[in-house]
Amino acid sequence: MMEPLDREALLARVRAQMHDKRYQHTLGVAESARQLALLYGADPDKAELAGFLHDYCKCWPVDKMFEILVRHDMPTELLQGDKELWHSFAGAIVIQSELGVTDPEIIQAVRYHTTGRVGMTLLEKVVCVADYIEPNRDFPGVGMIRALAEKDLDAALATALGGTIQFLIEKHKTVYPLTLLAYNDLVSRKGREGGFNG
Amino acid sequence: MMEPLDREALLARVRAQMHDKRYQHTLGVAESARQLALLYGADPDKAELAGFLHDYCKCWPVDKMFEILVRHDMPTELLQGDKELWHSFAGAIVIQSELGVTDPEIIQAVRYHTTGRVGMTLLEKVVCVADYIEPNRDFPGVGMIRALAEKDLDAALATALGGTIQFLIEKHKTVYPLTLLAYNDLVSRKGREGGFNG
Repeated sequence: MMEPLDREALLARVRAQMHDKRYQHTLGVAESARQLALLYGADPDKAELAGFLHDYCKCWPVDKMFEILVRHDMPTELLQGDKELWHSFAGAIVIQSELGVTDPEIIQAVRYHTTGRVGMTLLEKVVCVADYIEPNRDFPGVGMIRALAEKDLDAALATALGGTIQFLIEKHKTVYPLTLLAYNDLVSRKGREGGFNG
Repeated sequence: MMEPLDREALLARVRAQMHDKRYQHTLGVAESARQLALLYGADPDKAELAGFLHDYCKCWPVDKMFEILVRHDMPTELLQGDKELWHSFAGAIVIQSELGVTDPEIIQAVRYHTTGRVGMTLLEKVVCVADYIEPNRDFPGVGMIRALAEKDLDAALATALGGTIQFLIEKHKTVYPLTLLAYNDLVSRKGREGGFNG
């Protein structure tokens, strides 16, 4: 097991993996994740660190990610699915081997930041929502998700994941099943709580 | 095993299960299913019969459907899911016990006419699309699905199921996972064929 890097060394390593715009996005997610963590009672340092790390592999060649995923026995569903999802699962592997990250909460937050999953932890939700709402983001509906994120994290996440599913269908693309299950999980919990404020 | 009913007796039994508007819809689906079958090379008589039978349980009390589904060991996912789906699965059971239907193609076409499934047969696709486009249907986008159904049954079905998923998300409702898998299956086959004309 390698020694964990200090914050400066780690940021330099993150910086070296990506182009300027992706790094600005990364800093935005780290900051938004810290804010959401403070608002909802997650650990702000972990949230910020997971934000720094979440797109570690995003700009890597797909062949390199594919090789890592195959070596770690990722499911066929993922290997045959949208390549846009690979960086999350590859990232969760690589931050362990290259950066010495060992905290399972952070690793899972990186792994599921794109797809979501059933039974997401608070930290996973924080990072996933931060990825949608960080200040550099600009897509139709982002304003509504930002507003929701200030009062109801689950409603913000359900709206964000639901919007992603709708967008993919609009583009005639397949939807990773886990994302629908994550959406269903949030909506059905909301239903049991007596309503959805999204 | 009971004796199968003749066409007139069967139609009378169908008629007795539902109100006028649902019966008009039923006749519309039977006719549209026959036309689609003729267009795509499915058996027109089976398609028409499946159309007559597809909503046999639609107007039944939910308690009665629930009891049938429990008695036939339907999955928890279905029993806890949207009650709108129950009539298809209950219908597939009841047309066997009450009407003496034995043709597995027709039974499956009734069972999956609402959710779809992975690897749908031609007859299942025909009945599912007919249910969306029969002449009494009037919802946003029905015109596009009707037009697609004349030239590409799979594109029509993918568009119809995709539209249903988008609609459910718009209404903050859960989506039955099988419907997403059916949609993904159609879209990924289209991708392998070199494109989606929807």
